[in-house]
Amino acid sequence: MWMGQSSVDFIMAGCKLLDEGNVQSFLDNTDIVLTDCDGVLWRGNQVIPGAQETIEKLRKLGKKVLFVTNNSTKTRAEYVTKCASLGFPASEDEIISSSYVTAHYLKYIVKYTGKVYTVGPQGLAQELNAVGIPNFGTGPDVAENWKFEDYTTLPLDPEVNCVVVGFDKDFSYVKLCRATAYLRDKGCLFVATNTDTGLPVNGRFIPGTGTIVAAVSEAAERRPDIICGKPHLPIFDTVLKLHNVDPKRCIMIGDRLNTDIELAHNCGLGAALLVLTGCATLEEVRQKQSSNSIADQRLVPNFYLPSLAQLGTLIDSLK
Amino acid sequence: MWMGQSSVDFIMAGCKLLDEGNVQSFLDNTDIVLTDCDGVLWRGNQVIPGAQETIEKLRKLGKKVLFVTNNSTKTRAEYVTKCASLGFPASEDEIISSSYVTAHYLKYIVKYTGKVYTVGPQGLAQELNAVGIPNFGTGPDVAENWKFEDYTTLPLDPEVNCVVVGFDKDFSYVKLCRATAYLRDKGCLFVATNTDTGLPVNGRFIPGTGTIVAAVSEAAERRPDIICGKPHLPIFDTVLKLHNVDPKRCIMIGDRLNTDIELAHNCGLGAALLVLTGCATLEEVRQKQSSNSIADQRLVPNFYLPSLAQLGTLIDSLK
Repeated sequence: MWMGQSSVDFIMAGCKLLDEGNVQSFLDNTDIVLTDCDGVLWRGNQVIPGAQETIEKLRKLGKKVLFVTNNSTKTRAEYVTKCASLGFPASEDEIISSSYVTAHYLKYIVKYTGKVYTVGPQGLAQELNAVGIPNFGTGPDVAENWKFEDYTTLPLDPEVNCVVVGFDKDFSYVKLCRATAYLRDKGCLFVATNTDTGLPVNGRFIPGTGTIVAAVSEAAERRPDIICGKPHLPIFDTVLKLHNVDPKRCIMIGDRLNTDIELAHNCGLGAALLVLTGCATLEEVRQKQSSNSIADQRLVPNFYLPSLAQLGTLIDSLK
Repeated sequence: MWMGQSSVDFIMAGCKLLDEGNVQSFLDNTDIVLTDCDGVLWRGNQVIPGAQETIEKLRKLGKKVLFVTNNSTKTRAEYVTKCASLGFPASEDEIISSSYVTAHYLKYIVKYTGKVYTVGPQGLAQELNAVGIPNFGTGPDVAENWKFEDYTTLPLDPEVNCVVVGFDKDFSYVKLCRATAYLRDKGCLFVATNTDTGLPVNGRFIPGTGTIVAAVSEAAERRPDIICGKPHLPIFDTVLKLHNVDPKRCIMIGDRLNTDIELAHNCGLGAALLVLTGCATLEEVRQKQSSNSIADQRLVPNFYLPSLAQLGTLIDSLK
């Protein structure tokens, strides 16, 4: 838990434009730059102009850049390929994705030794495989000729003491039944890769992992024990486990208040920088800032910029 | 809305055993007996001993018996067959099922004239067909070779201004996407047949309609506009539309506090009778009764009996 004084100070200070007056100390205080991907570096398959150059400049200043995403569909290796194809060269250990965090957290922090039933994508299964956690459940699973009774006799694997829910395009009623049957045993760990309710794709909003988590939660009558993605702590706990770093010397760059910006405050990072090339608008920031609720204050970034390109320009202005 | 003084009086009076001292006035004040089915008349396919005889005796006393169920999978005609097969002869107009209520409510109360996209069972589609509301969506709907982009180009029928969610064994991520795409338009009506989170079948709990509603609600970022099943008003509004009756001269018999018993209070019925052959226990009733919350008080039945059989015995004792 990283909720030190500095984080509260930052919150109370409100959101400022990052400019020539404050960029020097912003950078001086930073060793690791955590950046969200979609909405910051690219939108869908379109690179955001200037983002590549800014990442390059940050690296030239000696900053470690980590790509942090709630997307659970890809393995880190697949993300490396995606990053490279869009002009963001990265190594596997620079990718912090929610499926990877889930596998890492279960293996090295929870030290889970059983089998996992997954309602999730191939990428999740592969990350679990990579750390040696046996798992099953990915892929289609539908009932052809259904009878009520069939669901009451679904075979359960006694070695399963953990259900992980991620983004699952094959989500089905049968999977919901299986997950529920395991989770009705309160001793069974309930893990969500993330809880984003939706993903904006090509101007339409498609249901995210959070919608599947909602169905499983309602059926099992319990909330997840662990949520791995932003704004929850496991994703940054994984960064800490991998990199020997003071949270205050990390910054988070993102486009969403309730994932990226809240993560920075939840984990006591040095600063949260919002870029306006994705979900959140400055109007939303102003609403949160003028609210009396502490929960809303935790959504206020310390700095904002129209886009990541301006950070590159500010770096150029430094002498 | 039926939340008259009498209902509050009943709630405040607490829950009593129905016995020889109060059964006479209980029956004298009743014209229509609404009874839940599973947990009251039968459990699964097992008739609860004495239930058949009690229903027969109530009818001999001139009471109209209506079979009221949140089960959305069957049409009324199918329910007539099920009732008959278990020894409860009934006509179609004595069946008040959530799919029927949904169709009736949309047609005759909301006066909806468009097309309906359903995430639900055949029984729902058939009840909508029966009142002449065009609809589609039932049956399997899965994506074989999925790409993110495919869900952003799902074709939408412009005549659909209403999504109905019921119990759907074929529920899938594709259906979730379609429902969400319609419901992101705030002008599209969002209807749930019911919101039961689970169904106890053969000692295992299987996910109910409420779990599918939860996923759709989370994805569409809105709650249902109309919930048809118990304890919500549309199910009793339908009874009122069909039968010219004073709500105070109706009683509800059920085994669940948060559906059957709450319905009785929400609609200002004459009395709510709990039988202990299904979900709720007397211990739960005592907990609700000793709670200070008004919401909990609305779950307290006026009377209870170990099973429906005892009501038959009490009727025999009347002279």
